[in-house]
Amino acid sequence: MQPLMTVEQIHAFLDREFPQIHMDGRVLAVTDIGPGRLAMRFDPNDRHLRPGNTLSGPSMVMLADVAAYAVILAHIGPVALAVTTSLNINFLRKPGLAPLFCDCKILKLGKRLAVIDTLLTQDRAEEPIAQATATYLIPPR
Amino acid sequence: MQPLMTVEQIHAFLDREFPQIHMDGRVLAVTDIGPGRLAMRFDPNDRHLRPGNTLSGPSMVMLADVAAYAVILAHIGPVALAVTTSLNINFLRKPGLAPLFCDCKILKLGKRLAVIDTLLTQDRAEEPIAQATATYLIPPR
Amino acid sequence: MQPLMTVEQIHAFLDREFPQIHMDGRVLAVTDIGPGRLAMRFDPNDRHLRPGNTLSGPSMVMLADVAAYAVILAHIGPVALAVTTSLNINFLRKPGLAPLFCDCKILKLGKRLAVIDTLLTQDRAEEPIAQATATYLIPPR
Amino acid sequence: MQPLMTVEQIHAFLDREFPQIHMDGRVLAVTDIGPGRLAMRFDPNDRHLRPGNTLSGPSMVMLADVAAYAVILAHIGPVALAVTTSLNINFLRKPGLAPLFCDCKILKLGKRLAVIDTLLTQDRAEEPIAQATATYLIPPR
Repeated sequence: MQPLMTVEQIHAFLDREFPQIHMDGRVLAVTDIGPGRLAMRFDPNDRHLRPGNTLSGPSMVMLADVAAYAVILAHIGPVALAVTTSLNINFLRKPGLAPLFCDCKILKLGKRLAVIDTLLTQDRAEEPIAQATATYLIPPR
Repeated sequence: MQPLMTVEQIHAFLDREFPQIHMDGRVLAVTDIGPGRLAMRFDPNDRHLRPGNTLSGPSMVMLADVAAYAVILAHIGPVALAVTTSLNINFLRKPGLAPLFCDCKILKLGKRLAVIDTLLTQDRAEEPIAQATATYLIPPR
Repeated sequence: MQPLMTVEQIHAFLDREFPQIHMDGRVLAVTDIGPGRLAMRFDPNDRHLRPGNTLSGPSMVMLADVAAYAVILAHIGPVALAVTTSLNINFLRKPGLAPLFCDCKILKLGKRLAVIDTLLTQDRAEEPIAQATATYLIPPR
Repeated sequence: MQPLMTVEQIHAFLDREFPQIHMDGRVLAVTDIGPGRLAMRFDPNDRHLRPGNTLSGPSMVMLADVAAYAVILAHIGPVALAVTTSLNINFLRKPGLAPLFCDCKILKLGKRLAVIDTLLTQDRAEEPIAQATATYLIPPR
């Protein structure tokens, strides 16, 4: 399963089609792409805080969802738009006010459905912050 | 299972402890509380939009999570803070640019865990926009 | 959303296409069908026990899955076969050695995906045993 | 995170405390244990079949649940019993009538909650059959 797009092509596509993800500044960036995989970095700001100097749950969901969307895009090309149909997230540890990294892996990329596994970490990879799986419906190509 | 707090008391608690939920204006309001139940209204603005004149997935997650948190708060009182441990959401239909209503119901309120079911609707209750269940860890009381 | 099949027709279809669900005796029976809804009864036997006189998790999953499958079948007719793509279950209370009832409700019945909500109860409806949502891929009709 | 029990000790514990998992023959066996990890093998028989020469969803849930339980047991020791509180499974590909392998990894082992990620494969590891995450409540130790 080889990616069809480069990091630069994905950034250009997201900038054009999803300008909303940058409304709080450029907080999201794809850092790596490989066969069936993609890594994204999230630099949170004041908008993503919660009491106790931590990050909000919805901002972690946003990271997992955008990264999962991007890994599908990278592997089917900028033709069709995938739609999130379900997402399951486990909040494992309280994140600190620091960059959050999302590694995602394609579990299945079928004709109609894609299932993506994502792991969110900060400095200690062996103590993940959150894990999410998300399912996407892929329009007829 | 009777609620211990009124709508006004919940609003006052959220304003004091979670001012962040109002950072985009007062978009969330509890509209009703009953035994094991709570209803919340979300008035989305430009920040919650996505291409195709729809609302973002993370903003729906935010609504389900805040409403579920509020129904637990209403039934255990403003003593301890529940922490979201997992959330599963099914996106059922594309929402329009209009208020979104969340009805939530306590499935279980145990000593250590609470499980809440939420249903998000717009104008047609029989065609829900999203359904989510969320699990919360309750600190020792 | 009106059902297209009667209880008898669903039983006949399941007997013919899914004889496996009866391999431990006739433990499952549809008890009611309505618009967008179906109820199923499960009479557990020794095979479904777990230590502490309770029922196994997988047997509760089986009940939720068969009931959800049956409510889709009832509403699309005995033409195409739906395939479970994901299932999320919350185990809320320890069931006793007694019949388990599953009420399921169609959240969405689209062209390609169906999402079903199920609630498992024993004698006290207000204290459910488990809640599950399941997603099904519907073959082209 | 080092395991506290050997494969033999886990088998002895399961035989004593969960004889039910062997009621269809010895279909489950731990094949490997490591820091934060455990592998289990499932040899299905006629009881686990479904039409179309495939394995039933509940039997895959059973495998993921027993393996996740075993990896917790291996790391906390045979003292306390963990209880499954939720399970989310994605069915990715139709399994054939052949052994199914479950690799599980501890995402979190806290004082009160454990979260386990499991991946079910057959012969081709890059095309997994199912993925599940399960959450367990750990009794006070």
